[in-house]
Amino acid sequence: MSFLSFFLGERKKTASVAKERLQIILAHERSNKNSPDYLQKLQRELLDVLSKYVVINPDDIKVNIESHGSLDVLEVKIEMQQKN
Amino acid sequence: MSFLSFFLGERKKTASVAKERLQIILAHERSNKNSPDYLQKLQRELLDVLSKYVVINPDDIKVNIESHGSLDVLEVKIEMQQKN
Repeated sequence: MSFLSFFLGERKKTASVAKERLQIILAHERSNKNSPDYLQKLQRELLDVLSKYVVINPDDIKVNIESHGSLDVLEVKIEMQQKN
Repeated sequence: MSFLSFFLGERKKTASVAKERLQIILAHERSNKNSPDYLQKLQRELLDVLSKYVVINPDDIKVNIESHGSLDVLEVKIEMQQKN
C-alpha cells in the first residue's frame, strides 16, 4: 500500500468539510541504540519552515509520537488558515 | 491502522541490514484548487533542516510525489551515514 492510499483511507474517516490540511510524518529507524534521537528538535524546526508558507495557529497543531524498538514515528497534523 | 504499524509493515519488506533510515512524508490536502502547491519548495527546505542533524549524501535520497485530486503526498526516504 502506498502512502497516498493510506492518506486517502484516513481522509475518508475524518474529512467532512474540505479544509486545508497538512500532515508531516517523520519515521526514524536507528541502526543502533546510541543513535541520537532528534525527532523532537526536528519537529520544532520543521514547523518553523512550514510557517513561512502557511499561517499556523498553535491550537491547530496535533502532535503524536510512537516508538517501537529502534523505530520512532512522529506525526504532526495541521489544519490551516490560508495565507492571503 | 497507525503510521507506526504502517512503517513496521514497510520495514519487514525492505530491512535486511539494520541501517539508519529517515523517512519524511508530507501530505497536503488543499481546500480549493487555487491553494498554492509548495511541497517541492518545502522539500528542499526540509532537507536543509535535516542536514543539520545527519550527514546526507544526495545519492542516498529517494523522493516520490503522488497526487490524487486535492491531495498531494511527498515522500522522502534517506539512508544515512552517521554524523560522528
